[in-house]
Amino acid sequence: MTTFIRKLEAAWRANDSLLCVGLDPDLKRFPAHLAGRPRAIAEFCRAIVDATADLVCAFKPQIAYFHAERAEDQLEEVITYIHDRYPAIPVILDAKRGDIGSTAEQYAREAFERYNAEAVTVSPFLGHDSISPYTVYKERGVIILCRTSNPGGSDMQFLDVEGPGGRERLYQRIARTVASQWNGNGNCALVVGATFPNELAEVRRIVGDLPLLVPGIGAQGGDIAATVAAGRDRTGAGLIINSGRAILYASGGTDFAAAARAAAVETRDAINAHR
Amino acid sequence: MTTFIRKLEAAWRANDSLLCVGLDPDLKRFPAHLAGRPRAIAEFCRAIVDATADLVCAFKPQIAYFHAERAEDQLEEVITYIHDRYPAIPVILDAKRGDIGSTAEQYAREAFERYNAEAVTVSPFLGHDSISPYTVYKERGVIILCRTSNPGGSDMQFLDVEGPGGRERLYQRIARTVASQWNGNGNCALVVGATFPNELAEVRRIVGDLPLLVPGIGAQGGDIAATVAAGRDRTGAGLIINSGRAILYASGGTDFAAAARAAAVETRDAINAHR
Repeated sequence: MTTFIRKLEAAWRANDSLLCVGLDPDLKRFPAHLAGRPRAIAEFCRAIVDATADLVCAFKPQIAYFHAERAEDQLEEVITYIHDRYPAIPVILDAKRGDIGSTAEQYAREAFERYNAEAVTVSPFLGHDSISPYTVYKERGVIILCRTSNPGGSDMQFLDVEGPGGRERLYQRIARTVASQWNGNGNCALVVGATFPNELAEVRRIVGDLPLLVPGIGAQGGDIAATVAAGRDRTGAGLIINSGRAILYASGGTDFAAAARAAAVETRDAINAHR
Repeated sequence: MTTFIRKLEAAWRANDSLLCVGLDPDLKRFPAHLAGRPRAIAEFCRAIVDATADLVCAFKPQIAYFHAERAEDQLEEVITYIHDRYPAIPVILDAKRGDIGSTAEQYAREAFERYNAEAVTVSPFLGHDSISPYTVYKERGVIILCRTSNPGGSDMQFLDVEGPGGRERLYQRIARTVASQWNGNGNCALVVGATFPNELAEVRRIVGDLPLLVPGIGAQGGDIAATVAAGRDRTGAGLIINSGRAILYASGGTDFAAAARAAAVETRDAINAHR
Protein backbone atom coordinates (compact mmCIF):
# COMPACT_ATOMS: atom_id res chain seq x y z
CA MET A 1 0.00 0.00 0.00
CA THR A 2 1.26 3.47 -0.91
CA THR A 3 1.77 5.58 2.18
CA PHE A 4 -0.36 8.64 2.85
CA ILE A 5 2.61 10.95 2.39
CA ARG A 6 3.54 9.43 -0.99
CA LYS A 7 -0.07 9.53 -2.16
CA LEU A 8 -0.34 13.16 -1.08
CA GLU A 9 2.85 14.11 -2.90
CA ALA A 10 1.61 12.38 -6.05
CA ALA A 11 -1.74 14.21 -5.83
CA TRP A 12 0.01 17.57 -5.37
CA ARG A 13 1.84 16.89 -8.64
CA ALA A 14 -0.86 15.16 -10.67
CA ASN A 15 -3.55 17.78 -10.01
CA ASP A 16 -1.09 20.66 -9.61
CA SER A 17 -3.06 21.54 -6.50
CA LEU A 18 -2.59 22.17 -2.78
CA LEU A 19 -6.35 22.47 -2.29
CA CYS A 20 -8.22 20.09 -0.01
CA VAL A 21 -12.01 20.12 -0.09
CA GLY A 22 -13.50 19.76 3.37
CA LEU A 23 -16.67 17.67 3.37
CA ASP A 24 -18.74 19.27 6.16
CA PRO A 25 -22.28 18.36 5.12
CA ASP A 26 -24.64 20.71 6.96
CA LEU A 27 -28.25 19.80 6.15
CA LYS A 28 -29.39 23.32 6.98
CA ARG A 29 -27.37 24.63 4.05
CA PHE A 30 -28.22 21.93 1.53
CA PRO A 31 -29.88 22.80 -1.78
CA ALA A 32 -33.65 22.62 -1.41
CA HIS A 33 -34.04 19.84 -3.96
CA LEU A 34 -32.02 17.48 -1.75
CA ALA A 35 -34.07 18.15 1.39
CA GLY A 36 -35.77 15.10 2.79
CA ARG A 37 -34.04 12.58 0.55
CA PRO A 38 -33.02 9.58 2.66
CA ARG A 39 -29.36 9.64 1.61
CA ALA A 40 -29.03 13.35 0.97
CA ILE A 41 -25.68 13.60 2.75
CA ALA A 42 -24.00 10.96 0.62
CA GLU A 43 -25.64 12.30 -2.53
CA PHE A 44 -24.44 15.82 -1.78
CA CYS A 45 -20.88 14.73 -0.94
CA ARG A 46 -20.59 12.47 -3.99
CA ALA A 47 -21.65 15.33 -6.25
CA ILE A 48 -19.04 17.61 -4.64
CA VAL A 49 -16.39 14.91 -5.03
CA ASP A 50 -17.23 14.34 -8.69
CA ALA A 51 -17.14 18.08 -9.35
CA THR A 52 -13.76 18.70 -7.72
CA ALA A 53 -11.68 15.49 -7.76
CA ASP A 54 -9.34 16.70 -10.49
CA LEU A 55 -8.73 19.97 -8.62
CA VAL A 56 -7.65 18.72 -5.19
CA CYS A 57 -4.81 17.00 -3.36
CA ALA A 58 -7.14 15.50 -0.71
CA PHE A 59 -10.68 15.27 0.57
CA LYS A 60 -11.33 15.86 4.26
CA PRO A 61 -14.68 14.62 5.60
CA GLN A 62 -15.45 16.01 9.07
CA ILE A 63 -16.83 13.11 11.09
CA ALA A 64 -19.09 15.13 13.44
CA TYR A 65 -21.31 16.32 10.60
CA PHE A 66 -22.07 12.69 9.76
CA HIS A 67 -22.34 11.36 13.31
CA ALA A 68 -24.67 14.14 14.48
CA GLU A 69 -27.10 12.94 11.78
CA ARG A 70 -26.75 9.18 12.46
CA ALA A 71 -25.13 8.97 9.03
CA GLU A 72 -22.10 6.76 9.68
CA ASP A 73 -23.16 4.55 6.78
CA GLN A 74 -23.17 7.57 4.49
CA LEU A 75 -19.66 8.50 5.62
CA GLU A 76 -18.56 4.96 4.77
CA GLU A 77 -20.27 5.29 1.41
CA VAL A 78 -18.58 8.61 0.60
CA ILE A 79 -15.10 7.34 1.48
CA THR A 80 -15.62 4.12 -0.46
CA TYR A 81 -16.85 6.19 -3.39
CA ILE A 82 -13.70 8.33 -3.36
CA HIS A 83 -11.50 5.25 -3.14
CA ASP A 84 -13.33 3.52 -6.00
CA ARG A 85 -13.61 6.45 -8.39
CA TYR A 86 -10.59 8.58 -7.48
CA PRO A 87 -8.05 6.19 -5.95
CA ALA A 88 -5.21 8.71 -6.33
CA ILE A 89 -6.84 11.19 -3.91
CA PRO A 90 -6.13 10.56 -0.20
CA VAL A 91 -8.95 10.87 2.33
CA ILE A 92 -8.23 12.68 5.60
CA LEU A 93 -10.77 11.87 8.30
CA ASP A 94 -11.10 15.01 10.39
CA ALA A 95 -11.86 13.66 13.86
CA LYS A 96 -9.38 15.43 16.18
CA ARG A 97 -9.21 12.44 18.48
CA GLY A 98 -7.32 12.54 21.75
CA ASP A 99 -7.49 9.79 24.34
CA ILE A 100 -5.28 7.45 26.34
CA GLY A 101 -3.62 4.46 24.68
CA SER A 102 -6.18 1.68 25.11
CA THR A 103 -8.97 3.92 23.87
CA ALA A 104 -6.83 5.54 21.17
CA GLU A 105 -6.43 2.05 19.71
CA GLN A 106 -10.21 1.92 19.24
CA TYR A 107 -10.29 5.36 17.62
CA ALA A 108 -7.44 4.31 15.30
CA ARG A 109 -9.42 1.20 14.33
CA GLU A 110 -12.44 3.40 13.64
CA ALA A 111 -10.46 5.78 11.39
CA PHE A 112 -8.16 3.35 9.60
CA GLU A 113 -10.06 0.06 9.56
CA ARG A 114 -13.74 0.90 9.70
CA TYR A 115 -13.58 4.05 7.57
CA ASN A 116 -10.33 3.16 5.80
CA ALA A 117 -9.15 6.78 5.73
CA GLU A 118 -5.59 7.43 4.57
CA ALA A 119 -5.05 9.90 7.42
CA VAL A 120 -6.73 11.18 10.57
CA THR A 121 -6.45 14.38 12.59
CA VAL A 122 -5.57 13.99 16.30
CA SER A 123 -4.92 16.21 19.32
CA PRO A 124 -1.51 16.29 21.05
CA PHE A 125 -3.00 17.18 24.45
CA LEU A 126 -2.66 13.70 25.96
CA GLY A 127 0.95 13.22 24.85
CA HIS A 128 3.06 10.60 23.13
CA ASP A 129 1.18 7.47 24.18
CA SER A 130 -2.05 8.97 22.83
CA ILE A 131 -0.41 9.39 19.39
CA SER A 132 1.53 6.13 18.96
CA PRO A 133 -1.60 3.96 18.48
CA TYR A 134 -2.09 5.91 15.24
CA THR A 135 1.52 6.23 14.06
CA VAL A 136 2.01 2.45 14.28
CA TYR A 137 -0.17 2.30 11.17
CA LYS A 138 2.94 3.19 9.17
CA GLU A 139 1.24 3.62 5.82
CA ARG A 140 -1.39 6.01 7.23
CA GLY A 141 -1.00 9.69 8.03
CA VAL A 142 -1.36 11.21 11.50
CA ILE A 143 -2.08 14.92 11.38
CA ILE A 144 -1.55 16.52 14.77
CA LEU A 145 -3.18 19.77 15.92
CA CYS A 146 -0.56 22.46 16.51
CA ARG A 147 -2.07 25.93 16.03
CA THR A 148 -5.77 25.89 15.31
CA SER A 149 -7.59 28.51 13.25
CA ASN A 150 -10.21 29.57 15.82
CA PRO A 151 -9.93 32.60 18.13
CA GLY A 152 -9.83 30.41 21.26
CA GLY A 153 -6.85 28.56 19.85
CA SER A 154 -4.68 31.12 21.60
CA ASP A 155 -6.01 30.21 25.06
CA MET A 156 -3.64 27.23 25.35
CA GLN A 157 -1.56 27.07 22.19
CA PHE A 158 -0.16 30.58 22.57
CA LEU A 159 0.94 30.22 26.19
CA ASP A 160 4.63 30.67 26.91
CA VAL A 161 6.23 27.43 28.06
CA GLU A 162 9.76 26.64 29.12
CA GLY A 163 11.58 25.03 26.20
CA PRO A 164 14.97 23.38 25.74
CA GLY A 165 16.38 26.55 24.22
CA GLY A 166 14.50 28.92 26.51
CA ARG A 167 10.94 30.10 26.48
CA GLU A 168 8.68 29.28 23.55
CA ARG A 169 4.96 29.11 22.78
CA LEU A 170 3.09 25.87 23.32
CA TYR A 171 2.40 25.51 19.58
CA GLN A 172 6.14 25.81 18.92
CA ARG A 173 6.82 23.13 21.50
CA ILE A 174 4.27 20.87 19.82
CA ALA A 175 5.82 21.41 16.39
CA ARG A 176 9.28 20.66 17.78
CA THR A 177 8.09 17.58 19.69
CA VAL A 178 6.31 16.09 16.69
CA ALA A 179 9.19 16.71 14.28
CA SER A 180 11.91 15.45 16.64
CA GLN A 181 10.19 12.74 18.73
CA TRP A 182 6.82 11.54 17.48
CA ASN A 183 7.59 11.21 13.76
CA GLY A 184 9.72 8.09 13.98
CA ASN A 185 7.63 6.35 11.33
CA GLY A 186 7.73 9.37 9.05
CA ASN A 187 3.94 9.59 8.84
CA CYS A 188 3.15 12.71 10.87
CA ALA A 189 1.88 16.08 9.67
CA LEU A 190 0.57 19.14 11.53
CA VAL A 191 -2.54 21.31 11.56
CA VAL A 192 -1.80 25.04 11.49
CA GLY A 193 -4.57 27.57 10.85
CA ALA A 194 -4.41 30.03 7.96
CA THR A 195 -5.65 32.75 10.30
CA PHE A 196 -2.17 32.99 11.86
CA PRO A 197 0.38 33.33 9.00
CA ASN A 198 3.22 34.41 11.28
CA GLU A 199 2.87 31.25 13.29
CA LEU A 200 2.49 29.18 10.14
CA ALA A 201 5.89 30.53 9.01
CA GLU A 202 7.36 29.71 12.42
CA VAL A 203 6.04 26.14 12.29
CA ARG A 204 7.47 25.70 8.80
CA ARG A 205 10.83 26.89 10.12
CA ILE A 206 10.73 24.33 12.93
CA VAL A 207 9.53 21.26 11.04
CA GLY A 208 11.35 21.43 7.69
CA ASP A 209 9.33 19.77 4.96
CA LEU A 210 6.66 18.11 7.11
CA PRO A 211 3.25 18.50 5.43
CA LEU A 212 0.95 21.08 7.00
CA LEU A 213 -2.84 20.89 6.88
CA VAL A 214 -4.10 24.45 6.83
CA PRO A 215 -7.77 25.19 7.57
CA GLY A 216 -9.14 28.70 7.88
CA ILE A 217 -9.14 30.20 4.42
CA GLY A 218 -12.52 31.13 2.98
CA ALA A 219 -15.30 31.36 5.57
CA GLN A 220 -12.83 31.80 8.43
CA GLY A 221 -11.01 34.68 6.77
CA GLY A 222 -7.46 33.38 6.26
CA ASP A 223 -5.57 35.05 3.42
CA ILE A 224 -4.37 32.78 0.61
CA ALA A 225 -1.29 34.77 -0.42
CA ALA A 226 -0.06 35.05 3.15
CA THR A 227 -0.78 31.36 3.80
CA VAL A 228 1.18 30.13 0.80
CA ALA A 229 4.09 32.49 1.41
CA ALA A 230 4.31 31.46 5.05
CA GLY A 231 3.66 27.74 4.72
CA ARG A 232 5.08 26.36 1.47
CA ASP A 233 8.00 23.98 1.67
CA ARG A 234 11.22 24.22 -0.35
CA THR A 235 9.53 22.69 -3.40
CA GLY A 236 6.57 25.07 -3.34
CA ALA A 237 4.30 22.35 -2.00
CA GLY A 238 4.02 20.96 1.56
CA LEU A 239 0.55 22.37 2.16
CA ILE A 240 -2.92 20.85 2.31
CA ILE A 241 -5.04 24.00 2.21
CA ASN A 242 -8.57 23.19 3.26
CA SER A 243 -11.68 24.94 2.10
CA GLY A 244 -15.07 23.64 3.16
CA ARG A 245 -18.09 25.89 3.37
CA ALA A 246 -16.92 28.39 0.72
CA ILE A 247 -16.88 25.57 -1.83
CA LEU A 248 -19.72 23.33 -0.63
CA TYR A 249 -22.24 26.13 -0.38
CA ALA A 250 -21.05 28.37 -3.24
CA SER A 251 -24.61 28.04 -4.53
CA GLY A 252 -27.66 26.88 -2.64
CA GLY A 253 -29.46 25.82 -5.80
CA THR A 254 -29.56 22.88 -8.18
CA ASP A 255 -26.28 24.14 -9.65
CA PHE A 256 -24.44 23.57 -6.35
CA ALA A 257 -21.93 21.13 -7.84
CA ALA A 258 -21.03 23.38 -10.77
CA ALA A 259 -20.73 26.33 -8.40
CA ALA A 260 -18.52 24.26 -6.11
CA ARG A 261 -16.30 23.40 -9.06
CA ALA A 262 -16.01 27.06 -10.03
CA ALA A 263 -15.12 28.02 -6.47
CA ALA A 264 -12.56 25.19 -6.28
CA VAL A 265 -10.94 26.24 -9.57
CA GLU A 266 -10.70 29.80 -8.33
CA THR A 267 -9.21 28.76 -4.98
CA ARG A 268 -6.73 26.34 -6.51
CA ASP A 269 -5.62 28.96 -9.01
CA ALA A 270 -5.31 31.65 -6.33
CA ILE A 271 -3.13 29.28 -4.32
CA ASN A 272 -0.98 28.39 -7.33
CA ALA A 273 -0.50 32.05 -8.22
CA HIS A 274 1.45 32.43 -4.97
CA ARG A 275 3.52 29.21 -4.93
CA MET B 1 -35.05 18.80 33.32
CA THR B 2 -32.81 18.26 36.33
CA THR B 3 -29.31 19.46 35.62
CA PHE B 4 -26.42 17.04 35.40
CA ILE B 5 -24.83 18.46 38.52
CA ARG B 6 -28.06 18.11 40.58
CA LYS B 7 -28.61 14.59 39.30
CA LEU B 8 -25.03 13.68 40.16
CA GLU B 9 -25.35 15.09 43.66
CA ALA B 10 -28.58 13.16 44.18
CA ALA B 11 -26.94 9.93 42.98
CA TRP B 12 -23.96 10.46 45.30
CA ARG B 13 -26.43 10.60 48.18
CA ALA B 14 -28.99 8.02 47.12
CA ASN B 15 -26.46 5.28 46.38
CA ASP B 16 -23.91 6.51 48.91
CA SER B 17 -21.36 6.10 46.15
CA LEU B 18 -18.68 8.05 44.27
CA LEU B 19 -18.12 5.12 41.92
CA CYS B 20 -18.70 5.47 38.18
CA VAL B 21 -18.67 2.34 36.05
CA GLY B 22 -16.93 2.90 32.73
CA LEU B 23 -18.60 1.02 29.90
CA ASP B 24 -15.66 0.13 27.64
CA PRO B 25 -16.97 -2.94 25.81
CA ASP B 26 -13.97 -4.76 24.37
CA LEU B 27 -15.13 -7.78 22.36
CA LYS B 28 -11.78 -9.49 22.83
CA ARG B 29 -12.42 -9.67 26.56
CA PHE B 30 -16.09 -10.67 26.44
CA PRO B 31 -17.30 -13.89 28.06
CA ALA B 32 -17.18 -16.72 25.54
CA HIS B 33 -20.93 -17.34 25.67
CA LEU B 34 -21.59 -13.86 24.24
CA ALA B 35 -19.20 -14.27 21.30
CA GLY B 36 -20.84 -13.96 17.91
CA ARG B 37 -24.20 -12.78 19.20
CA PRO B 38 -25.41 -9.95 16.97
CA ARG B 39 -26.02 -7.49 19.82
CA ALA B 40 -23.37 -8.76 22.21
CA ILE B 41 -22.17 -5.25 23.11
CA ALA B 42 -25.58 -4.03 24.23
CA GLU B 43 -26.30 -7.31 25.99
CA PHE B 44 -23.03 -7.13 27.88
CA CYS B 45 -23.46 -3.49 28.87
CA ARG B 46 -27.07 -3.94 29.96
CA ALA B 47 -26.06 -6.83 32.20
CA ILE B 48 -23.30 -4.72 33.75
CA VAL B 49 -25.75 -1.83 34.25
CA ASP B 50 -28.35 -4.08 35.90
CA ALA B 51 -25.69 -5.57 38.18
CA THR B 52 -24.27 -2.24 39.37
CA ALA B 53 -26.91 0.49 39.07
CA ASP B 54 -27.55 0.68 42.81
CA LEU B 55 -23.81 1.00 43.50
CA VAL B 56 -22.84 3.93 41.27
CA CYS B 57 -23.21 7.68 40.89
CA ALA B 58 -22.84 7.55 37.08
CA PHE B 59 -22.23 5.36 34.07
CA LYS B 60 -19.60 6.39 31.54
CA PRO B 61 -19.80 4.72 28.12
CA GLN B 62 -16.64 5.29 26.05
CA ILE B 63 -17.80 6.09 22.55
CA ALA B 64 -14.77 4.72 20.65
CA TYR B 65 -15.44 1.14 21.80
CA PHE B 66 -18.86 1.34 20.17
CA HIS B 67 -17.88 3.24 17.03
CA ALA B 68 -14.92 0.99 16.24
CA GLU B 69 -17.43 -1.87 16.03
CA ARG B 70 -20.08 0.00 13.99
CA ALA B 71 -22.28 -0.26 17.07
CA GLU B 72 -23.74 3.24 17.36
CA ASP B 73 -27.20 1.73 17.59
CA GLN B 74 -26.09 -0.38 20.54
CA LEU B 75 -24.71 2.71 22.28
CA GLU B 76 -28.09 4.38 21.77
CA GLU B 77 -29.77 1.27 23.16
CA VAL B 78 -27.56 1.16 26.26
CA ILE B 79 -28.11 4.83 27.09
CA THR B 80 -31.86 4.55 26.53
CA TYR B 81 -31.87 1.47 28.73
CA ILE B 82 -30.15 3.34 31.57
CA HIS B 83 -32.55 6.26 31.23
CA ASP B 84 -35.60 3.97 31.21
CA ARG B 85 -34.61 1.64 34.03
CA TYR B 86 -32.38 3.82 36.20
CA PRO B 87 -33.44 7.42 35.54
CA ALA B 88 -31.65 8.69 38.64
CA ILE B 89 -28.22 7.71 37.29
CA PRO B 90 -26.56 10.25 34.97
CA VAL B 91 -24.80 9.06 31.82
CA ILE B 92 -21.44 10.60 30.94
CA LEU B 93 -20.49 10.10 27.30
CA ASP B 94 -16.72 9.79 27.24
CA ALA B 95 -15.80 11.27 23.86
CA LYS B 96 -13.01 13.81 24.63
CA ARG B 97 -14.13 16.03 21.78
CA GLY B 98 -12.15 19.10 20.80
CA ASP B 99 -12.88 21.12 17.68
CA ILE B 100 -13.65 24.66 16.53
CA GLY B 101 -17.07 26.20 17.15
CA SER B 102 -19.05 25.26 14.05
CA THR B 103 -17.92 21.64 14.32
CA ALA B 104 -18.19 21.54 18.11
CA GLU B 105 -21.88 22.34 17.63
CA GLN B 106 -22.22 19.10 15.68
CA TYR B 107 -20.37 17.11 18.34
CA ALA B 108 -22.60 18.66 21.01
CA ARG B 109 -25.67 17.62 19.02
CA GLU B 110 -24.25 14.10 18.77
CA ALA B 111 -23.66 13.86 22.54
CA PHE B 112 -26.70 15.66 23.90
CA GLU B 113 -29.38 15.20 21.24
CA ARG B 114 -28.56 12.00 19.41
CA TYR B 115 -27.24 10.06 22.41
CA ASN B 116 -29.04 12.17 25.04
CA ALA B 117 -26.14 11.89 27.50
CA GLU B 118 -26.34 14.01 30.64
CA ALA B 119 -22.67 14.98 30.27
CA VAL B 120 -19.78 14.69 27.83
CA THR B 121 -16.00 14.82 28.19
CA VAL B 122 -14.18 17.44 26.09
CA SER B 123 -10.62 18.68 25.54
CA PRO B 124 -9.58 22.26 26.42
CA PHE B 125 -6.86 22.36 23.76
CA LEU B 126 -8.81 24.54 21.30
CA GLY B 127 -9.89 27.08 23.90
CA HIS B 128 -13.04 28.85 25.00
CA ASP B 129 -14.96 28.87 21.72
CA SER B 130 -14.48 25.10 21.43
CA ILE B 131 -16.17 24.66 24.85
CA SER B 132 -19.08 27.10 24.71
CA PRO B 133 -21.09 25.05 22.15
CA TYR B 134 -21.39 22.44 24.94
CA THR B 135 -21.86 24.71 27.96
CA VAL B 136 -24.81 26.48 26.29
CA TYR B 137 -26.72 23.26 27.01
CA LYS B 138 -27.18 24.53 30.56
CA GLU B 139 -28.77 21.41 31.97
CA ARG B 140 -25.98 19.16 30.66
CA GLY B 141 -22.53 18.62 32.12
CA VAL B 142 -19.27 19.51 30.35
CA ILE B 143 -16.32 17.63 31.79
CA ILE B 144 -13.05 19.14 30.63
CA LEU B 145 -9.73 17.30 30.49
CA CYS B 146 -7.22 18.80 32.90
CA ARG B 147 -4.67 16.20 34.00
CA THR B 148 -5.07 12.86 32.31
CA SER B 149 -4.13 9.53 33.86
CA ASN B 150 -1.74 8.28 31.16
CA PRO B 151 2.07 8.60 31.25
CA GLY B 152 2.12 10.92 28.20
CA GLY B 153 -0.26 13.27 29.99
CA SER B 154 2.83 15.02 31.31
CA ASP B 155 4.12 15.90 27.84
CA MET B 156 1.84 18.94 27.59
CA GLN B 157 -0.15 19.18 30.81
CA PHE B 158 2.89 19.33 33.05
CA LEU B 159 4.71 22.07 31.15
CA ASP B 160 5.46 25.27 33.02
CA VAL B 161 3.48 28.21 31.65
CA GLU B 162 3.42 31.83 32.65
CA GLY B 163 0.42 32.44 34.89
CA PRO B 164 -1.21 35.53 36.38
CA GLY B 165 0.48 34.88 39.70
CA GLY B 166 3.75 33.68 38.21
CA ARG B 167 4.70 30.36 36.71
CA GLU B 168 2.32 27.42 36.93
CA ARG B 169 1.78 24.08 35.20
CA LEU B 170 -0.52 23.92 32.18
CA TYR B 171 -2.99 21.67 34.07
CA GLN B 172 -3.17 24.30 36.83
CA ARG B 173 -3.85 26.98 34.26
CA ILE B 174 -6.64 24.86 32.78
CA ALA B 175 -8.21 24.28 36.21
CA ARG B 176 -8.05 28.01 36.96
CA THR B 177 -9.43 29.00 33.53
CA VAL B 178 -12.37 26.60 33.74
CA ALA B 179 -13.30 27.59 37.30
CA SER B 180 -12.97 31.33 36.73
CA GLN B 181 -13.94 31.83 33.06
CA TRP B 182 -15.61 28.90 31.34
CA ASN B 183 -18.04 27.85 34.08
CA GLY B 184 -20.48 30.73 33.68
CA ASN B 185 -23.42 28.34 33.36
CA GLY B 186 -22.30 26.31 36.37
CA ASN B 187 -22.18 23.08 34.41
CA CYS B 188 -18.47 22.36 34.11
CA ALA B 189 -16.42 19.64 35.77
CA LEU B 190 -12.84 18.46 35.25
CA VAL B 191 -11.02 15.21 34.47
CA VAL B 192 -8.03 14.55 36.74
CA GLY B 193 -6.33 11.15 36.75
CA ALA B 194 -6.01 9.09 39.93
CA THR B 195 -2.44 8.30 38.98
CA PHE B 196 -1.37 11.79 40.09
CA PRO B 197 -2.77 12.38 43.61
CA ASN B 198 -0.59 15.41 44.27
CA GLU B 199 -1.99 17.14 41.24
CA LEU B 200 -5.50 16.01 42.10
CA ALA B 201 -5.10 17.79 45.45
CA GLU B 202 -3.79 20.89 43.68
CA VAL B 203 -6.76 20.94 41.29
CA ARG B 204 -9.16 20.57 44.22
CA ARG B 205 -7.46 23.54 45.87
CA ILE B 206 -7.89 25.66 42.74
CA VAL B 207 -11.49 24.80 41.81
CA GLY B 208 -13.32 24.65 45.16
CA ASP B 209 -16.23 22.23 44.99
CA LEU B 210 -16.31 21.64 41.22
CA PRO B 211 -16.95 17.93 40.51
CA LEU B 212 -13.90 15.95 39.38
CA LEU B 213 -14.09 12.88 37.16
CA VAL B 214 -11.21 10.64 38.17
CA PRO B 215 -10.13 7.78 35.90
CA GLY B 216 -7.10 5.65 36.59
CA ILE B 217 -7.90 3.49 39.60
CA GLY B 218 -7.92 -0.26 39.04
CA ALA B 219 -6.19 -1.36 35.83
CA GLN B 220 -4.19 1.86 35.56
CA GLY B 221 -2.83 1.61 39.12
CA GLY B 222 -4.24 4.67 40.89
CA ASP B 223 -4.56 4.31 44.66
CA ILE B 224 -8.07 4.70 46.11
CA ALA B 225 -7.08 6.03 49.52
CA ALA B 226 -4.79 8.66 48.03
CA THR B 227 -7.39 9.61 45.42
CA VAL B 228 -10.16 10.18 47.95
CA ALA B 229 -7.92 12.06 50.36
CA ALA B 230 -6.64 14.32 47.61
CA GLY B 231 -9.84 14.85 45.66
CA ARG B 232 -12.88 14.91 47.95
CA ASP B 233 -14.72 18.18 48.40
CA ARG B 234 -15.74 19.74 51.71
CA THR B 235 -18.73 17.41 52.00
CA GLY B 236 -16.74 14.25 51.37
CA ALA B 237 -18.16 13.97 47.86
CA GLY B 238 -17.20 15.90 44.70
CA LEU B 239 -15.69 12.89 42.95
CA ILE B 240 -16.79 10.65 40.10
CA ILE B 241 -14.27 7.83 40.44
CA ASN B 242 -14.28 5.72 37.32
CA SER B 243 -13.49 2.05 37.12
CA GLY B 244 -13.91 0.24 33.83
CA ARG B 245 -11.92 -2.86 33.02
CA ALA B 246 -11.45 -4.00 36.64
CA ILE B 247 -15.22 -4.25 36.99
CA LEU B 248 -16.31 -5.24 33.47
CA TYR B 249 -13.87 -8.11 33.19
CA ALA B 250 -13.72 -9.25 36.82
CA SER B 251 -14.71 -12.66 35.46
CA GLY B 252 -14.50 -13.86 31.89
CA GLY B 253 -17.19 -16.48 32.40
CA THR B 254 -20.97 -16.72 32.50
CA ASP B 255 -20.85 -15.16 35.98
CA PHE B 256 -19.40 -11.91 34.60
CA ALA B 257 -22.28 -9.75 35.86
CA ALA B 258 -22.16 -11.17 39.39
CA ALA B 259 -18.39 -10.78 39.42
CA ALA B 260 -18.77 -7.19 38.20
CA ARG B 261 -21.20 -6.52 41.02
CA ALA B 262 -18.81 -7.96 43.58
CA ALA B 263 -15.95 -5.84 42.21
CA ALA B 264 -18.16 -2.75 42.24
CA VAL B 265 -19.25 -3.35 45.85
CA GLU B 266 -15.63 -3.76 46.85
CA THR B 267 -14.55 -0.59 45.03
CA ARG B 268 -17.43 1.51 46.31
CA ASP B 269 -16.76 0.34 49.87
CA ALA B 270 -13.02 0.99 49.56
CA ILE B 271 -13.81 4.52 48.38
CA ASN B 272 -16.30 5.10 51.19
CA ALA B 273 -13.85 3.85 53.80
CA HIS B 274 -11.67 6.85 53.00
CA ARG B 275 -14.27 9.63 52.63
